[in-house]
Amino acid sequence: MTAPLHEAHPTGRRRALPDTQQGMRRRNLARVMHTVRAEGPLSRAAVASRIGLTRAAVSTLVDELIRAGLLEELGPERPGRVGRPGSALAVSGRGPAGIGAEVGVDHLAVCAVDLTGTTRARAIRQGANRGRSPEPVIAELTGLIRQVVSEAESEGLWPAGLAVAVPGLVARDGRTVVRAPNLDWRDADLGALLPADLPPTVDNEANFGALAELWLGEDTPGDFLHVSAEIGIGAALVVDGGLLRGTRGFAGELGHVPVRPDGPECGCGGRGCLEQYAGEEAVLRAAGLEPDRDRVGALAGRAADGDENVRRALRDAGSALGVALTGAVNLLDPESVVLGGELSGLAPWLLSSLREELARRTAGPACPVSVSRLGPEGPLLGAAHSVVRAVLDDPAAFAAQR
Amino acid sequence: MTAPLHEAHPTGRRRALPDTQQGMRRRNLARVMHTVRAEGPLSRAAVASRIGLTRAAVSTLVDELIRAGLLEELGPERPGRVGRPGSALAVSGRGPAGIGAEVGVDHLAVCAVDLTGTTRARAIRQGANRGRSPEPVIAELTGLIRQVVSEAESEGLWPAGLAVAVPGLVARDGRTVVRAPNLDWRDADLGALLPADLPPTVDNEANFGALAELWLGEDTPGDFLHVSAEIGIGAALVVDGGLLRGTRGFAGELGHVPVRPDGPECGCGGRGCLEQYAGEEAVLRAAGLEPDRDRVGALAGRAADGDENVRRALRDAGSALGVALTGAVNLLDPESVVLGGELSGLAPWLLSSLREELARRTAGPACPVSVSRLGPEGPLLGAAHSVVRAVLDDPAAFAAQR
Repeated sequence: MTAPLHEAHPTGRRRALPDTQQGMRRRNLARVMHTVRAEGPLSRAAVASRIGLTRAAVSTLVDELIRAGLLEELGPERPGRVGRPGSALAVSGRGPAGIGAEVGVDHLAVCAVDLTGTTRARAIRQGANRGRSPEPVIAELTGLIRQVVSEAESEGLWPAGLAVAVPGLVARDGRTVVRAPNLDWRDADLGALLPADLPPTVDNEANFGALAELWLGEDTPGDFLHVSAEIGIGAALVVDGGLLRGTRGFAGELGHVPVRPDGPECGCGGRGCLEQYAGEEAVLRAAGLEPDRDRVGALAGRAADGDENVRRALRDAGSALGVALTGAVNLLDPESVVLGGELSGLAPWLLSSLREELARRTAGPACPVSVSRLGPEGPLLGAAHSVVRAVLDDPAAFAAQR
Repeated sequence: MTAPLHEAHPTGRRRALPDTQQGMRRRNLARVMHTVRAEGPLSRAAVASRIGLTRAAVSTLVDELIRAGLLEELGPERPGRVGRPGSALAVSGRGPAGIGAEVGVDHLAVCAVDLTGTTRARAIRQGANRGRSPEPVIAELTGLIRQVVSEAESEGLWPAGLAVAVPGLVARDGRTVVRAPNLDWRDADLGALLPADLPPTVDNEANFGALAELWLGEDTPGDFLHVSAEIGIGAALVVDGGLLRGTRGFAGELGHVPVRPDGPECGCGGRGCLEQYAGEEAVLRAAGLEPDRDRVGALAGRAADGDENVRRALRDAGSALGVALTGAVNLLDPESVVLGGELSGLAPWLLSSLREELARRTAGPACPVSVSRLGPEGPLLGAAHSVVRAVLDDPAAFAAQR
C-alpha cells in the first residue's frame, strides 16, 4: 500500500497535511490504519516492520487508535510462531461508519459501511422524485438516514459523516446543487436541509460512481474515464487516483458533448448532444417503449427477449457513445473507459457498437472499455466509502471528533 | 508568490521533494530564488521577512546561491533608508540559461533565456521539414543549438538544459516522438540524436505553448485549455498550474475530436475530425488557396484584404472549433480557453463564429475564449522557460551540476 500524504476529505477532495510534528503524527496514524486495513490482522511488530517505524512508536500510535475505537485487538496470535505471541490488530467493526445516501430520479437509498468495508445497514425507497422540490425529498431521505444510523448504532457503530450522491451539477462548496435537470432542481442548498450533526457532503453521482470503481473495482487503473447514467449521462475522470473536478466542479458533462452538431435540440440549449442519442429517454423513444418505472430493466428485458427495435436502439446509443468517447479519449488519454451506473445493465447490447466506433476512429490500439461490476450500486457505495476513506486517511481528526 | 513544494522538471513534470533535512534545504533555496526573481532586487533582510526564515538562515542560503552563480549582489542599496544598508540581491543575468528549440513543419528555431526571463540569443531557419527523416533535421537543429549556446556563453551564460518542442505525440519518456503526422515521423528517438551534454527533453508543442501562457501570459488562470495549431490542431489542459498529460502522454488531441461523425475521412482513421474542418490544409482548400509557404500569413493577408472566400473558410473553421470546444468544455470545465500558436494570428476571423457556437451550445454563461499575446512564439518560449523554471524550482540540483 502507499502511505497517504494528503488529508482526507469526503468525495476525494484532498489537501496536504501540514509539514509539522503534529502533521507527521497524523500521517503515521493514517499509515497504521491503512496497513492494518489492507493486510490485517497484524501484530504491532508486523505493522512496525511494514511501515518502517520502531515497535515502540507503533505501539503508541496503535494505543491511540484503540482508545479512539478505530482499531481492535483480536487477542493473541495463534501459537507455533517464533517469539512471544503478539496480539493481532484489526480495524474495528464497531467503530465509525460512513453513511452514504443517494437521491435518484426514481428512488432514494441510504447505507452504512464500516471501516472494514462491510455494508452494515441499508434502506431504499422507490418513488418518482422528478418535479418534487428539494425540501420534501430531503426530508424523506433524512428519515431513511435516521433509520440506517439507528440500525448501525444498535450494532455498536457511530456515524463518522454523511455523503450524498445526486444526479446533477454540484458546486465546489460540496453542498449546493447548481442544476439537476432531471429533478428540475436549481441552486438548491442541500447542506441546509440535511442533518447538520453528521456532517453532510454532496457530490455528483458520476463522481461517487467513479470513486467506488477506483476503490472497490478489480484491477482498476489510477487513470480512467468512468461513464455512468441514470437519465442523464455523466462521466468522471480519475487522474493519478484523484477526481478531475473542473473550475466550477462541473467537469464530466459527457451527456452534452455534441455528437451531431445539427441534430435534435437539447434541453441544455445545444443541438445533437450525446443525451439526444444515448440518454434513457432517447433510447426509450427510439425503441418505442414507455414504461412507467424501471426503465433500464424494461429495456434490458426486451433486449434479452430479442426485441429487434430495442436492440437497434441500444446499438445506435452505443455508436453515439463511441463518437463522444472518441473525443474524450483524444482529449484525455485515459488508461481505460469503465461503464458504470445503470448503463452497465445495458452493456451487453451497447458495448460492441461502442467499441467498434471507438476502434475505427482511433489510430493505433483503441482505449479499452470495460463494464463495472458495481453496476447501479456504484454511486451509493462510493458515497459511503468516501466517508470511510476520510477516516482511514486522517484518523486523528475523527478520534478527536468522537 | 507561493513556495514551490515540488521538484522541478523541464516541461512541467513535477515530483515532491523528499521530506528530509536535505529536502527542506532544497525547498528553501527555491523559495529564495523565486522571491528574488518575483520581487527583487531585495536585501537579505527583505528576503528573510518575506519567506519567514531568520536572516542568518537566509544568508547561508544566499551565499550558496551566489557561489553557484544563480544570484548576484548589486552592491549597497541606495542610502537614506533606516538601518545599515544591505546589499541588494538579484537573479543572475550571467548564470544558467534555458535553451529552447522548436521543430516546426516549415522552420527550426532555437533561443536562450536567462534566469531573469530575458531572451539573450536566438536563431531561426526557414525550410520545409515535412518528409525529411529525423536525423538530418535534428543535425541541422543541433547546429543552431550550438550557435545559440556559443552566443550565450560569450555573454557569460551557461546552458542549464535543452527543451525541444515538436508537432507530434511524445511518449512520457520525454525523448521519443511516437507520431508526428505532419513530419511523417514515427517512433523517432530524438533523445539519441540531440546533444547529450545539455541534457535534452522533448515535448509536444501544444504543451510548451500552454506552459508559456501559464508562465508568461497576463492574468492567465491556473486552469485553462490552450488550443494551438501549426498544421495539426493540438490542445493542452492546465489544471492547478500543471499539465494534464494522459496515461501515455497523448492528452490534448483536439484535432481528432469528431465534429461531424459522417464527415470526410481523416488520416487518423476516423471521419469528420476537427482537423478536416479547421486544420490549416482544410482551411486553405476551402479558401481556394495553395501558398508554398507562410500559409497562415497568406490566409491572414487575404482575410484582411476582405477576400470573402477566405473569410467564409475561417468563419466555418471557427464554428467547427466551437463544436469541438463545446465538448471539451463540457468534459473539463476549464476557467477559460486560450487560442495560441499560429491560430492566434487568424483569431480576428475565427473568434466570433467560435464564440457564437460555444455560447449557443452552453446552458448558462459560456466559457470565455481569449487570444494569446505570445502567438506563434509560445512553444519556443515555453520550451526555454521550462528549463529556467526547473532551475528556479530546484537550484541545488543545478548548482551541483555546475
